[in-house]
Amino acid sequence: MRIDGREKDQLRTVKITTNYIKHAEGSVLIEMGDTRVVCTATVEDKVPPFAKGEGKGWITAEYGMLPRSTETRNVREATKGRQSGRTLEIQRLIGRALRGVVDLKALGERTLWIDCDVIQADGGTRTAAITGSFVALALALNKLVEDGILPVIPLKDFVAAVSVGIVEGEEVLDLNFEEDSKALVDMNVVMTGSNRFVEVQGTGEEATFSMEELQRLLTLAQKGIRELIELQKQALGDIARRIGMENAADSNSQ
Amino acid sequence: MRIDGREKDQLRTVKITTNYIKHAEGSVLIEMGDTRVVCTATVEDKVPPFAKGEGKGWITAEYGMLPRSTETRNVREATKGRQSGRTLEIQRLIGRALRGVVDLKALGERTLWIDCDVIQADGGTRTAAITGSFVALALALNKLVEDGILPVIPLKDFVAAVSVGIVEGEEVLDLNFEEDSKALVDMNVVMTGSNRFVEVQGTGEEATFSMEELQRLLTLAQKGIRELIELQKQALGDIARRIGMENAADSNSQ
Amino acid sequence: MRIDGREKDQLRTVKITTNYIKHAEGSVLIEMGDTRVVCTATVEDKVPPFAKGEGKGWITAEYGMLPRSTETRNVREATKGRQSGRTLEIQRLIGRALRGVVDLKALGERTLWIDCDVIQADGGTRTAAITGSFVALALALNKLVEDGILPVIPLKDFVAAVSVGIVEGEEVLDLNFEEDSKALVDMNVVMTGSNRFVEVQGTGEEATFSMEELQRLLTLAQKGIRELIELQKQALGDIARRIGMENAADSNSQ
Amino acid sequence: MRIDGREKDQLRTVKITTNYIKHAEGSVLIEMGDTRVVCTATVEDKVPPFAKGEGKGWITAEYGMLPRSTETRNVREATKGRQSGRTLEIQRLIGRALRGVVDLKALGERTLWIDCDVIQADGGTRTAAITGSFVALALALNKLVEDGILPVIPLKDFVAAVSVGIVEGEEVLDLNFEEDSKALVDMNVVMTGSNRFVEVQGTGEEATFSMEELQRLLTLAQKGIRELIELQKQALGDIARRIGMENAADSNSQ
Amino acid sequence: MRIDGREKDQLRTVKITTNYIKHAEGSVLIEMGDTRVVCTATVEDKVPPFAKGEGKGWITAEYGMLPRSTETRNVREATKGRQSGRTLEIQRLIGRALRGVVDLKALGERTLWIDCDVIQADGGTRTAAITGSFVALALALNKLVEDGILPVIPLKDFVAAVSVGIVEGEEVLDLNFEEDSKALVDMNVVMTGSNRFVEVQGTGEEATFSMEELQRLLTLAQKGIRELIELQKQALGDIARRIGMENAADSNSQ
Amino acid sequence: MRIDGREKDQLRTVKITTNYIKHAEGSVLIEMGDTRVVCTATVEDKVPPFAKGEGKGWITAEYGMLPRSTETRNVREATKGRQSGRTLEIQRLIGRALRGVVDLKALGERTLWIDCDVIQADGGTRTAAITGSFVALALALNKLVEDGILPVIPLKDFVAAVSVGIVEGEEVLDLNFEEDSKALVDMNVVMTGSNRFVEVQGTGEEATFSMEELQRLLTLAQKGIRELIELQKQALGDIARRIGMENAADSNSQ
Repeated sequence: MRIDGREKDQLRTVKITTNYIKHAEGSVLIEMGDTRVVCTATVEDKVPPFAKGEGKGWITAEYGMLPRSTETRNVREATKGRQSGRTLEIQRLIGRALRGVVDLKALGERTLWIDCDVIQADGGTRTAAITGSFVALALALNKLVEDGILPVIPLKDFVAAVSVGIVEGEEVLDLNFEEDSKALVDMNVVMTGSNRFVEVQGTGEEATFSMEELQRLLTLAQKGIRELIELQKQALGDIARRIGMENAADSNSQ
Repeated sequence: MRIDGREKDQLRTVKITTNYIKHAEGSVLIEMGDTRVVCTATVEDKVPPFAKGEGKGWITAEYGMLPRSTETRNVREATKGRQSGRTLEIQRLIGRALRGVVDLKALGERTLWIDCDVIQADGGTRTAAITGSFVALALALNKLVEDGILPVIPLKDFVAAVSVGIVEGEEVLDLNFEEDSKALVDMNVVMTGSNRFVEVQGTGEEATFSMEELQRLLTLAQKGIRELIELQKQALGDIARRIGMENAADSNSQ
Repeated sequence: MRIDGREKDQLRTVKITTNYIKHAEGSVLIEMGDTRVVCTATVEDKVPPFAKGEGKGWITAEYGMLPRSTETRNVREATKGRQSGRTLEIQRLIGRALRGVVDLKALGERTLWIDCDVIQADGGTRTAAITGSFVALALALNKLVEDGILPVIPLKDFVAAVSVGIVEGEEVLDLNFEEDSKALVDMNVVMTGSNRFVEVQGTGEEATFSMEELQRLLTLAQKGIRELIELQKQALGDIARRIGMENAADSNSQ
Repeated sequence: MRIDGREKDQLRTVKITTNYIKHAEGSVLIEMGDTRVVCTATVEDKVPPFAKGEGKGWITAEYGMLPRSTETRNVREATKGRQSGRTLEIQRLIGRALRGVVDLKALGERTLWIDCDVIQADGGTRTAAITGSFVALALALNKLVEDGILPVIPLKDFVAAVSVGIVEGEEVLDLNFEEDSKALVDMNVVMTGSNRFVEVQGTGEEATFSMEELQRLLTLAQKGIRELIELQKQALGDIARRIGMENAADSNSQ
Repeated sequence: MRIDGREKDQLRTVKITTNYIKHAEGSVLIEMGDTRVVCTATVEDKVPPFAKGEGKGWITAEYGMLPRSTETRNVREATKGRQSGRTLEIQRLIGRALRGVVDLKALGERTLWIDCDVIQADGGTRTAAITGSFVALALALNKLVEDGILPVIPLKDFVAAVSVGIVEGEEVLDLNFEEDSKALVDMNVVMTGSNRFVEVQGTGEEATFSMEELQRLLTLAQKGIRELIELQKQALGDIARRIGMENAADSNSQ
Repeated sequence: MRIDGREKDQLRTVKITTNYIKHAEGSVLIEMGDTRVVCTATVEDKVPPFAKGEGKGWITAEYGMLPRSTETRNVREATKGRQSGRTLEIQRLIGRALRGVVDLKALGERTLWIDCDVIQADGGTRTAAITGSFVALALALNKLVEDGILPVIPLKDFVAAVSVGIVEGEEVLDLNFEEDSKALVDMNVVMTGSNRFVEVQGTGEEATFSMEELQRLLTLAQKGIRELIELQKQALGDIARRIGMENAADSNSQ
């Protein structure tokens, strides 16, 4: 039915490889179809100036694409000398998504640097980055627990993200690049394991959408995110269970 | 009930002064409470390289704040040598919002430069910028009609924007700065005169929100935007009526 | 006689609106004909590194133009990523002009940030910025006195600025943009309430001028500046009188 | 004997995965021990301005490291707004190395963009980048032949690179990061399949070296490069043979 | 009487070495006391975009200081990534000064690039740069005549510059660095061979000055400039005479 | 035989003028044929952040070219806003070359800033910069001894540099610009007074070279460097003898 034979409400094949980079405190390679993103989490023992002395931590995310991760080569941002508006927007989105589930007080005055680098792009890189980063983050936080620095993993819930959109009149889940290029409406949704939104960004591309379309798209996203969180749990194994148990009481309460 | 005595579903006092800058093809000063934004529309007789030869026009928006438009002075972006991620994000939002209602084919190979400069900020500057820019844009397009360059105003509909959010447990319309600082959920909504969304951006600030909260917030935004479009019509006078008549047939059809 | 009907030695209509921006310690909107500049003064409780430990304050001025303040849109400096030579030159001029009348020792280790933003340009923006900034500065300094932080307003004198030039063979005061474009000689003059110069910048544009022409232009400027200082006094009301009385003894002595 | 148990003249385990990125005309993942570099080759149908109209092609190389490819996170160059001296130096080296074996005339007015991105770093990233890039380049050039754009692969020879150095008094081949940190003398050598040098860069790090040491190091490098070229041939399969046959006559003659 | 034994109206020892750089169309080393500036003039056969198609030429000046030309090392502007406000101001001044005497129409659509690089600084570098640049410019223009490209040297007059100031209550000519640091009033004056001003820039440094002081300073500057132009004539030899003869009729007429 | 009549193994005329800049702690003008470079050494009483607390000093080198030092004007790097890859590469080379002979421990926590500015370029500017910088450095270090800050000059040896290359089939010493443009192989060699290498950089320009060619070029370079070190000794006079005596025991031992 869809270009790549998927059902309208079907995710692409997802694969999460943990500990992909030996140096990082937490790292994964996440693959969603042909989209491949390396996510790492780095722990730094201080917070940015604006957050100093408040007794809580911070999450900063950065995002980049290899020049030839895309169909046509995109100019390297380090060469241009600045990050594009798109890159900055994605970085801010990833940071907000993760801050939505981290207990920053329990983290203490530490910064977690999240780096998401797209090795190969085929649509949905920002949502894959969020889904993968959560796993890298959990691994890094678990290491802080294992090293005796934190008593419990300071996560209030799981979080994952997916894109939905209207392509040729059909509402579909997890758009690949070709679908994304044709979509009149494009939406990125970030949700927690408790079915609550952290972020909803719906955009008409020289087009508009109704309340009903919006609701159906959000329902579609919800289905996809539930499946993604299941995959995060599998990738994290025991660590996932520890997040579940220790924080179960709190995850719905904010 | 609210900090400034408003009802939960009440807009601040809105004032739209047209032709505020004598040089610009279209210009307004929009005031929403203490938020004041100068919006200008400039017509350029060519399109950016990526759009050349496609027989249609383009809308580019830029946004800035005077250093002391805010409570504490913010560093001038021209001095820092680059625009912040927030600025780039807002610029892109304004551009998409306006492109949602302009008939770019009918515009022809022209660029409309929209400049939104915040003179005084008290929350909701980006949504005020969109609401004001639409009026400046309509004035500039009308001038192209009056000058005999275009046969009709190439607008498919009206568009306006407003913020909604959850502040101290209450869902409120058109947040001022103090409310915005306290909001757990913050949403910017862009809608057309036909009650269709161009953009929905809902964000939990280290918090989350449910599907029901989302829907109630969108309904609140819808009410506000209807009132704002009414005020746009008053500001545009005869020009508004001409947009209405010439394009009535098309405005729901995309 | 002149393009806009003025006499050769006549200023344009000047209007100074105080407290134009609610957040700033001092602010004005100054209008000279169609030139409109927002000037704000911000107090910061420290000085730049180079001035530390010398027991005196500092004045830093910044200047900007809205992109469509001019006849044709000028590219936003924040977008270009750097301020032009013209902007830097004007900023330095405004800073020197104000430092010429502030008692920096009496100010103590504080920085006054002066921001001058041109909303609409029709010639003479830098001189309007100086004249307006002085009033914003006086308001901010008076606030420090009212807040009990300083015992008296640390101003040695008033200061204002005006342009003069030779246009089509005539020596004229306060050039508007059209006159400025045609001027062979263009001069910006900054003077105090005691008739002393802080700055004289006379430039031939692919032209030259004689000692006699220079002197006549300076005399013309002197007349304009006396009138501008009278208008500053009216705008400042009681505060002006306080500057006068407390510092009267010193104002001629440097 | 060495930190990782290798002989002094032994390469780390090398793995070259071809066609690693689906979008690129040529691509490989090269792994030398824990060092992993993605190399892509992009064909562009024009040359840079300085080379226009000379009837020959150009090779431009760019290099980057993921922020957490290294032991401690290095700041993203796109965020800093500029590439470091080290990065620029490596880019220039890769470009010269490849231009040493490409027949630029036979390539015609085309640019080959080589992108080398370090996913994980453990010493020797620049030499791995050269060795991997050659394979990516050969794949891209072969594609031009297969597409009927070029009659033969315009390569005069193979080229590969390796590091050698003096570590704790021992001359060793293919230093890993720990060895590199301790090396008093560090040398990067680029050689062709015909045993000729394209580049020799030997550096004493606050130290010096004799003519004899230099010669022994170059001999060691020669051994390593011969093995690397053998591995390039295996990775390229049939394509390697085609390079060999068509260009055999020329490869020693320059 | 003065720090270095000079009379109040005495220039420092001036030396102008022509053809100092073999590559440039015109070049000089100008020395005024310990201030040493290399000035070169480069001819380019086109004008900047803003001047295209107007049938006249342009003069662009650039200025730089070697990092250790000054008492304490100043940071290299190429390293900082931008030119300071002071540098831009000086560049603009040099350009205006020279354009004041060049017949841009007679020059034709050519740009003259003037580069002024301070090898050693001891006050008055900008005025030395103007005085030296005029000679470099005349040499380059003369070369255009000798090469048969222009019929006559397109110079309307000579131009030179000098600083004057009030130091410890005394009005003095040609301040060295130590005097400049102490000066309450500092003035840079640019004059032609016909005793006409191109530029007057007088500045009180946290100080003010009267009309009478201004006039005495200008008279002092006039004396110095007359002597400098005499030295320019000696340096130019025959070429000077040719400027004099061919343009004698016009030099007073603008 | 060569373009300028030299023997293949003959240096150009070398002239080293010491104390060329009065402000710098050490300075020379080095001339090699028509190549002229000003080298200064500045002493700063602290080290860069990365070297703090290690009880040793640092050498940082910067390099620049006057815009018209070259045949055609090169754009000023301060104007472009960044240093080229070539400049950064040369700066790093000069720093490493000097650090190869300085006893950084004996220097103590001080930085020596080396500035090399090319006044006129005719090939070999980077090697002339190294040879000249060593003399400037020795002068600055000697000043530290004379001022009683250091007990002995912390230099382990002399160091100088020269280029060699293969031009039209001939191996030649000290290439001028014309030769450099034609060279197929170009090599920069840095050696100490004890005949040991600090750096060897050999590059084929779209060409390759054999082990034998490399060895003959290095032997040629050795001859040139011996002569250059002799000239450094003459320029330093007594100071040279002091370097020799105090450090004689150590110079071969690293």
